[in-house]
Amino acid sequence: MSTAKPVLTPGATIGILGSGQLGRMLVLAAARLGFKCHVFSPDPESPAADVAHRMTSADYSDTQALERFAAAIDVATYEFENVPATSATFLSKRVPVLPDPNVLATTQDRLAEKNFVAALGIPTAPFVAVSEAGELSPALAKIGRPAVLKTRRFGYDGKGQTAIGDGADPAAAWDGVGGQACILEAFVPFAREVSVVAARGQDGTVECFDVTENEHRDHILKISRVPAAMSATSAQEALRIADTIANKFGYVGVLAVELFVMRDGGLLVNEIAPRVHNSGHWTIDGASVSQFEQHVRAVAGWPLAKPVRRGRVEMINLIGSEIEDYRKWLTIPGAAVHLYGKTQVRPGRKMGHVTRVFAE
Amino acid sequence: MSTAKPVLTPGATIGILGSGQLGRMLVLAAARLGFKCHVFSPDPESPAADVAHRMTSADYSDTQALERFAAAIDVATYEFENVPATSATFLSKRVPVLPDPNVLATTQDRLAEKNFVAALGIPTAPFVAVSEAGELSPALAKIGRPAVLKTRRFGYDGKGQTAIGDGADPAAAWDGVGGQACILEAFVPFAREVSVVAARGQDGTVECFDVTENEHRDHILKISRVPAAMSATSAQEALRIADTIANKFGYVGVLAVELFVMRDGGLLVNEIAPRVHNSGHWTIDGASVSQFEQHVRAVAGWPLAKPVRRGRVEMINLIGSEIEDYRKWLTIPGAAVHLYGKTQVRPGRKMGHVTRVFAE
Repeated sequence: MSTAKPVLTPGATIGILGSGQLGRMLVLAAARLGFKCHVFSPDPESPAADVAHRMTSADYSDTQALERFAAAIDVATYEFENVPATSATFLSKRVPVLPDPNVLATTQDRLAEKNFVAALGIPTAPFVAVSEAGELSPALAKIGRPAVLKTRRFGYDGKGQTAIGDGADPAAAWDGVGGQACILEAFVPFAREVSVVAARGQDGTVECFDVTENEHRDHILKISRVPAAMSATSAQEALRIADTIANKFGYVGVLAVELFVMRDGGLLVNEIAPRVHNSGHWTIDGASVSQFEQHVRAVAGWPLAKPVRRGRVEMINLIGSEIEDYRKWLTIPGAAVHLYGKTQVRPGRKMGHVTRVFAE
Repeated sequence: MSTAKPVLTPGATIGILGSGQLGRMLVLAAARLGFKCHVFSPDPESPAADVAHRMTSADYSDTQALERFAAAIDVATYEFENVPATSATFLSKRVPVLPDPNVLATTQDRLAEKNFVAALGIPTAPFVAVSEAGELSPALAKIGRPAVLKTRRFGYDGKGQTAIGDGADPAAAWDGVGGQACILEAFVPFAREVSVVAARGQDGTVECFDVTENEHRDHILKISRVPAAMSATSAQEALRIADTIANKFGYVGVLAVELFVMRDGGLLVNEIAPRVHNSGHWTIDGASVSQFEQHVRAVAGWPLAKPVRRGRVEMINLIGSEIEDYRKWLTIPGAAVHLYGKTQVRPGRKMGHVTRVFAE
């Protein structure tokens, strides 16, 4: 049943696994188009629950709750890629799930993801699988230093990864990531980090937003800028890569492809996020259609829109205590302020963002 | 307590009286800014209830329900001007209510509204109060034909009004509007109908959106166009009128002033809507800030934004069975489709709207 492609009518209910700010913005976009949303997550008080028509608070592995959820919705999707693939598969036997749960199985495992990308002939940083402590030394010998050891599963915002520099002790790095199955990646001296947010509709149409340049701070996205400072040829190639990946997955919905741009303009795929993405938040104010609406259109079986950018755009994340800056941002002409309704401020937590659109 | 001016912090709860599409779009704008909304209305299944954090389904005169509502919110506002002024006043003794309920008392009564406008030295169509059947003939003699008989209360979308042309029987007109207290207005041969949507903040700042030209069909707004086809001088005067009215009310929030533009460029105020307004829907996609966000900013005690229009804008209402056109609109480049989640299609019912922004 996971291959069923539903076409929703207004008033239908979209189920969303996960209830963070991505879910919140998906709910708001779905509401614009006349849909109701039912959010499923372990957190009863959460950004998406505030605006959802209904909320199921249960563990992702609670099959009884998933049964009831499936019966109450017309299609399911996710805002969070670490939903257990088994839960998504369980759901997909009862209700259409988009994108297909098979995509999760690939993107939840860095090794599977890298192999998937490499099989498409798309360059990535050199990598080697490291399944146990003993495999790290030969891997380092092959990849060279500096290198980055990354857990295969559950990494985000720099979590689950550690650099191995010239003098570093590999054993400490192995312990640092918790002694889990990893990959060892060459550290690539990239010039910039960019991403492509792409939507693929049920009819196979792919619509990409313009390539976005991303600046991180402490491994967390701080600023996105569009257009990215790169050659038109590199930008075209980045879009082609995203298009290729979306098509190969038979993807339905929005995904993001993160890439490194090398000094010579060459591109390496860093990772794939099978969901709407922080680097696409600028599209709410900076484009004629948002990544969230594109995702809703896709999972609803509706035609995608052709995004038109409204100017040069900058998106600034409000992280941790930076949330207090909202007062300043409210007074800055043209600044669009987005707050996620999170009550607890924690260091590194994404609390909101601001978008600015400038004439190009 | 109604004069208390709250300054909300993100996470606070805004209470909204009324639960139609205006409430829905207010909830969506409030959510963007990190607020929760609690909607109060007699209709449990309604456009705003779909997206609200909480919903109280009760009659507007249910004081026990209003008590509980007041205790659960930080500020109250309305999306619907026919909320009983007594209910708003009752609430205002328990929680700040913005705009002030006194405004409702004026705008709910066409006679009080006309007198309020006239007292500001702002022109309106000539009018006379008609309190009983016997007053209609002398009123007609004074105003002349054609004239329009309008009930003082509860009129919208052409309801509660009837024209009295050359051959028409005044008694039939009186019966036609239900024999209620009315005003008789001269029919003015206007060139166009326009509106100004204005926001006034707690600090007294007024920010107007550009004058909007409105085309009605069967007394229901069909198309809004911005900018309105009128001289810069007339447009400036329209903004000045809205500013004067907002200030005189000591208004907090968004209001709309509907005006007639005469052939010589002169302006007559037709009516005042003390709420966000259908003719301001274009601002969601066509301006740097929407009327809904301006209203939320105002009632939250936050600074207003300075709206910048993104181009020439057209807003088309989807009325009754026109909702079926959403499929067509979804494929039209640059068309932003908004559906209100109403399950029942009825003739004359506003089901959604479409906004198109063009380069100017």
